[in-house]
Amino acid sequence: MTLIKEDDEIYLVLDSRRNYKVQVEQDKQFHTHKGYIELGDLIGQPYGITVTSSLGVSFYVLKPLIRDRVLKTDRHTQVLYPKDISYILFQLGIGPGSTVVEAGTGSGALTMALANTVRPDGKIYSYDISEKHQNTAAKNIERSGLMPYVNLAILDITEGIPHEDVDAVILDMATPWQVVEHAWKAMAGSAVFLSFSPTIEQVMKTTEELNKHPFIEIETVELMLREITVAYNKTRPKTQMIGHSGYLTSARKVTKLLE
Amino acid sequence: MTLIKEDDEIYLVLDSRRNYKVQVEQDKQFHTHKGYIELGDLIGQPYGITVTSSLGVSFYVLKPLIRDRVLKTDRHTQVLYPKDISYILFQLGIGPGSTVVEAGTGSGALTMALANTVRPDGKIYSYDISEKHQNTAAKNIERSGLMPYVNLAILDITEGIPHEDVDAVILDMATPWQVVEHAWKAMAGSAVFLSFSPTIEQVMKTTEELNKHPFIEIETVELMLREITVAYNKTRPKTQMIGHSGYLTSARKVTKLLE
Amino acid sequence: MTLIKEDDEIYLVLDSRRNYKVQVEQDKQFHTHKGYIELGDLIGQPYGITVTSSLGVSFYVLKPLIRDRVLKTDRHTQVLYPKDISYILFQLGIGPGSTVVEAGTGSGALTMALANTVRPDGKIYSYDISEKHQNTAAKNIERSGLMPYVNLAILDITEGIPHEDVDAVILDMATPWQVVEHAWKAMAGSAVFLSFSPTIEQVMKTTEELNKHPFIEIETVELMLREITVAYNKTRPKTQMIGHSGYLTSARKVTKLLE
Amino acid sequence: MTLIKEDDEIYLVLDSRRNYKVQVEQDKQFHTHKGYIELGDLIGQPYGITVTSSLGVSFYVLKPLIRDRVLKTDRHTQVLYPKDISYILFQLGIGPGSTVVEAGTGSGALTMALANTVRPDGKIYSYDISEKHQNTAAKNIERSGLMPYVNLAILDITEGIPHEDVDAVILDMATPWQVVEHAWKAMAGSAVFLSFSPTIEQVMKTTEELNKHPFIEIETVELMLREITVAYNKTRPKTQMIGHSGYLTSARKVTKLLE
Repeated sequence: MTLIKEDDEIYLVLDSRRNYKVQVEQDKQFHTHKGYIELGDLIGQPYGITVTSSLGVSFYVLKPLIRDRVLKTDRHTQVLYPKDISYILFQLGIGPGSTVVEAGTGSGALTMALANTVRPDGKIYSYDISEKHQNTAAKNIERSGLMPYVNLAILDITEGIPHEDVDAVILDMATPWQVVEHAWKAMAGSAVFLSFSPTIEQVMKTTEELNKHPFIEIETVELMLREITVAYNKTRPKTQMIGHSGYLTSARKVTKLLE
Repeated sequence: MTLIKEDDEIYLVLDSRRNYKVQVEQDKQFHTHKGYIELGDLIGQPYGITVTSSLGVSFYVLKPLIRDRVLKTDRHTQVLYPKDISYILFQLGIGPGSTVVEAGTGSGALTMALANTVRPDGKIYSYDISEKHQNTAAKNIERSGLMPYVNLAILDITEGIPHEDVDAVILDMATPWQVVEHAWKAMAGSAVFLSFSPTIEQVMKTTEELNKHPFIEIETVELMLREITVAYNKTRPKTQMIGHSGYLTSARKVTKLLE
Repeated sequence: MTLIKEDDEIYLVLDSRRNYKVQVEQDKQFHTHKGYIELGDLIGQPYGITVTSSLGVSFYVLKPLIRDRVLKTDRHTQVLYPKDISYILFQLGIGPGSTVVEAGTGSGALTMALANTVRPDGKIYSYDISEKHQNTAAKNIERSGLMPYVNLAILDITEGIPHEDVDAVILDMATPWQVVEHAWKAMAGSAVFLSFSPTIEQVMKTTEELNKHPFIEIETVELMLREITVAYNKTRPKTQMIGHSGYLTSARKVTKLLE
Repeated sequence: MTLIKEDDEIYLVLDSRRNYKVQVEQDKQFHTHKGYIELGDLIGQPYGITVTSSLGVSFYVLKPLIRDRVLKTDRHTQVLYPKDISYILFQLGIGPGSTVVEAGTGSGALTMALANTVRPDGKIYSYDISEKHQNTAAKNIERSGLMPYVNLAILDITEGIPHEDVDAVILDMATPWQVVEHAWKAMAGSAVFLSFSPTIEQVMKTTEELNKHPFIEIETVELMLREITVAYNKTRPKTQMIGHSGYLTSARKVTKLLE
């Protein structure tokens, strides 16, 4: 059984809106509107328990999953939803030890999910042209403990990618088609290229460019997720739904195209 | 650069319908309707190259990804699509070292995806009541090289789960609600329960049962994936689409429920 | 060319949010935040022109369509969207001269669409148990000029339907299954029954009841509508979407079921 | 109660796949694989009854609705589904007495639905460049009894529309953008333009052209319909679904655009 240790990050849950990621430290208190919690008391306890604040309000103590980290990430620069992130991770075919190039870094939400997948001996090279984005992302990734597997840098990869033999290239940027040739050069044979784009014009231009280079299995999909309310005599899909986040265009590098 | 080694499994691609997973052996030929390929010649070559058969037909030589394995798995007992498998992997929050209980094993497609995620030091305990399913799955998993991370057994887990402190329970079976209590007992605190069910009655019964036990963050979603044809003046979603595979109901174990 | 006449209702449009349905009267002004409009000046003018207010702001003058009336209807009691209303009208197979029973009346939005379809010699008998609903609906229908084709009454049709040989029964109420038997009695042979229900439990109970009576072609569908933003380099489905309004369950009456 | 009369078209239903539209004539038999039916015996009978063939097999006798006619129409040239047709009819805002220009005629399925809506005193001018399409459509419409409300002609309306003051223009053709200017000229003020197009490039070009002319309320939507299987412990959306038929782009004519 995994017990809570000093320096662990925990996830304190009051309800679906009020939940917090907190680092456990001896002799430290975590203050909420419902009183404070003695974090040191949690050391040596199992996950899944409840803890009661100084004002007598109880919280669940959960172990943060990568999906919790993604959801808690600052959303200002983020349009990727769990439905997209999970599909990206699967489609990229990466795992422990993989090397991945990502651009742009954005809030770092996808960066963390990628890093979580390639640890302990892989690496995510994540580029962005915005210093502000990278600072935000750095803070988010640092807190998650995944920074050892990430290399952040400010770089415009439409001008080139300073890597070779990478296992995957994942793009969430305005002009992915300008990166296709650089991506091909940076990728290992058989590696996966994937671009997330909100507009169909981005998809068209990127696909056209992919068709001009030695890429196969070029395809575009979109994912829709519906939440279902399940309750006695009230079971139904929720009224509101995200109708569109973006298209996912992927391809696989080969050394040359067959006739 | 990863070079092809003896005993590696490779993925020979002629086109989207004609593609084969093959194990590389010195002095062995792989025979297709388009002639045979000398597999030994591939040893020491990089992935992504093309290879020409005795009849002069060329194939791409790719490195099989977990998604290729899932798609090549015998589909007779399978209703899980990549959209569902990828979401399951993400939602479960598992990674290298995780212990997972799965039932039923089915074709082994999801088992392989789970095993790929928890390797090198995790384990998937996969149960099925059908010996036939398990035999098929065993063959599929064996070929993928992921058997070291899988433990297959014929067992009806509606009668109990012989594990403790597992990191996740994932169900794709007819009566998941009969497993909820056993799952709670087998799971570590904070671990994730997820059930994939085609019908809404299964979802209702499972949710009702989850509500009776110390589970939080109980939710159900469904995913729809549309493939987009992207071609000059012909860009459009494909006419045919999978309208429904199943609902995904998930929850997280706590030791007790707060009032 | 249809010219605007005294007493016509017109639709003044400033933009997609600021638009008004107004009755044209000689010597009357319509006051807006952007100045007033001399309604008498419009008499004898064609539709589609622009008219300028006393403050120099111009409005388009459109002829109200049934879809404008539906959208302008008070939405407090309304969950039916144009996608549903249009499908209902088509599925019911009604036209000029048809007799239709509706319950509940709600805001009267669907009542107007039904009345518009059966005029000039058909009739909608619309029932609701709420006097408040019927008062709101009466006001809406009166304004649309469709009241001659509508008969509103406060009545609980779970206790019976006081009609014979009606061409269609359309339900948007909490317990449609309690009306199935009464509907069968009130309907002409070959007539269409249709029920709109937000929850799947309502659909299940109604379908079960339909299966117990001489109904054929029993089916349930749901419709999803996505709005697409079409603009240079910005073409994409909108982010927000209505994920669910309700299920549409329909059937056709026969005199007896074949074995 | 509507009784079956000589010359009425009836709809004989054995099951969801075996159903036939037949014209009732005294002393005539309708032959099926399950024996023949004496059509004259039906005269004076109500709809919804069952009739038994010479081989003792019973059929339901239904009154054909416009949706039955649409579904029975030859589908070779047809991509419009009921979900689209119903939305088109509603969005166009037409009714008894309306004048509509349609192109292309295709199989005539939409033509019939339009004609059914504008009868008894409206007219559908339906154009197609293919004589073959028009011949097929003519046969379909003739059989439906709706020909009095339809005017079919072979004409390429990208070169002009020979009408004025029409209430609606509905296009289902390869190059709708080439018709936008002609449509504007042919339409009454406030009338509705609607184009059904499978590809997004058609939507982009048509929208661009609409933006260049005095049209307001320019919008594009797509509709998805899911069929739900409702049966005890088997309730679920069907696996297969039509993912895409086409986009629906609509707009309203004004005499001039405001700044």
